[in-house]
Amino acid sequence: MLYDSIIIGTGPAGVSAALNLKILDKNFLWFGSGASSKKVEAAELIRNYPGLPDISGVELSSALVSHAKSMGIEPRHEIVTAIYDLGGRYAVTAGTDTFESKTIILCTGVTTAKPIGGEEQFLGRGVSYCATCDGFLYKGKTIGVILFDKAFEHEAEYLASLAGKVYLMPMYKGCGVSSENIEVVMKMPKEIAGGMKVQKLIFADGEREVDGVFILRSSVSPSILLRGLNTDGGHIVVDRQCRTNLAGVFAAGDCTGRPYQYAKSVGEGNVAAHAAVDYLAEHRE
Amino acid sequence: MLYDSIIIGTGPAGVSAALNLKILDKNFLWFGSGASSKKVEAAELIRNYPGLPDISGVELSSALVSHAKSMGIEPRHEIVTAIYDLGGRYAVTAGTDTFESKTIILCTGVTTAKPIGGEEQFLGRGVSYCATCDGFLYKGKTIGVILFDKAFEHEAEYLASLAGKVYLMPMYKGCGVSSENIEVVMKMPKEIAGGMKVQKLIFADGEREVDGVFILRSSVSPSILLRGLNTDGGHIVVDRQCRTNLAGVFAAGDCTGRPYQYAKSVGEGNVAAHAAVDYLAEHRE
Repeated sequence: MLYDSIIIGTGPAGVSAALNLKILDKNFLWFGSGASSKKVEAAELIRNYPGLPDISGVELSSALVSHAKSMGIEPRHEIVTAIYDLGGRYAVTAGTDTFESKTIILCTGVTTAKPIGGEEQFLGRGVSYCATCDGFLYKGKTIGVILFDKAFEHEAEYLASLAGKVYLMPMYKGCGVSSENIEVVMKMPKEIAGGMKVQKLIFADGEREVDGVFILRSSVSPSILLRGLNTDGGHIVVDRQCRTNLAGVFAAGDCTGRPYQYAKSVGEGNVAAHAAVDYLAEHRE
Repeated sequence: MLYDSIIIGTGPAGVSAALNLKILDKNFLWFGSGASSKKVEAAELIRNYPGLPDISGVELSSALVSHAKSMGIEPRHEIVTAIYDLGGRYAVTAGTDTFESKTIILCTGVTTAKPIGGEEQFLGRGVSYCATCDGFLYKGKTIGVILFDKAFEHEAEYLASLAGKVYLMPMYKGCGVSSENIEVVMKMPKEIAGGMKVQKLIFADGEREVDGVFILRSSVSPSILLRGLNTDGGHIVVDRQCRTNLAGVFAAGDCTGRPYQYAKSVGEGNVAAHAAVDYLAEHRE
């Protein structure tokens, strides 16, 4: 099955893009954590979302989610770990499945976390973003698990149930994962190193030998997600139609740069969806 | 008094820009017809304004207007007829007054009406957009009045009370203006012609001698409003920050081009306001 479009991200930009693709009767998939976005939900008071004066982030988030639901659209919760350019179409890996689409709309927000040294270099050669997808490769082996969010603790537990030994690096307080084969390391590795494949984690004060590293965070930097995508200072470069440098790939919202504003995000989600639909019309077979 | 910014237009882009300038505590004026926009109000059902599912144009318009009111901001209803670049600041003529501002945010929507032949050439030399401003110049004289909207009938009546003879060209049905010195001409002139000043209106089937022509419509084409503004196919050319080619002049909403969408307009209004504030910070004296 070849989809018209795949939207990645459920923040305001993703919701806006999804509403428009639905209205324009396109065959699309929508991936994201679901409840709009954590960043929106954390907002105490939003005064400048036109038409909804003085609302909380939770209220805006809920208004966006219920708007989408009212039109019968709900996101899939698998995390997208890679997008491959197949020439004229794209393959999107999410969880253990791969989906093909003519267009991609990236609404991935901003990743404040910088990639870890070696992360990009060893991706697919010992670095993985997905426990469900690649966990079985490390049965009985030694792995590092860098955990950015409580939401991924069950993935860390799953990995611990397979691996021989786990170095667990939680990047937040109050991590609840424990198992006899887990050694908690309360710091970030400086670098992931190795030869053809990952061999070790280098810390400021020493090293740990590992066969693989799982980096579990909700957003992957866009240039890692999709090779060849033009970025500038961590933002995806787009034109006024929200087109990226890759044909058929569009981006909207915070991932395209400042100002980080809900109104800007919904505007760009709308523009990106219309640009994708224009692209589909131009490339009809 | 030198304002930080003047916003022109009360559609979704103008409302969004105004909300942000208010929050950012800028000293600004806001001009427009008031009730959001006629175009918004005419929309039967809007399904893709994120967060407000299935609303009518009247409801969206009222939500936008009341959002602005709740923050203590209301537009002035004078029609802006000209903007002059004074080098580092701009003079805005609205009604009979002139206001100066460091920045301008154009949210003027799209004008479907093409300029009339000679309109731009004779502007200020017999062509006027404002009865209140220039009517007294034509006491006892012969003028043409091209009327695009019922809202301007009182201006046409005012002109008839001053002029010796009026050729009235209403561009809509059911025009209610009448006076002994009015001759209704039910067609559009092909051209406004003259030498140093306007001398006649040329129709497909003949001419009428006039001393001046009043063109009464709610929106003036942006390139006529502000000389030197870069436009393309009737749209104002802007970059990703909604900056035009003129320093300190920004544009947002339908006037910057397709898609003509409410979400895009509020997004651009937000971006333009932030870009104007950045510009003010960079040009602080």
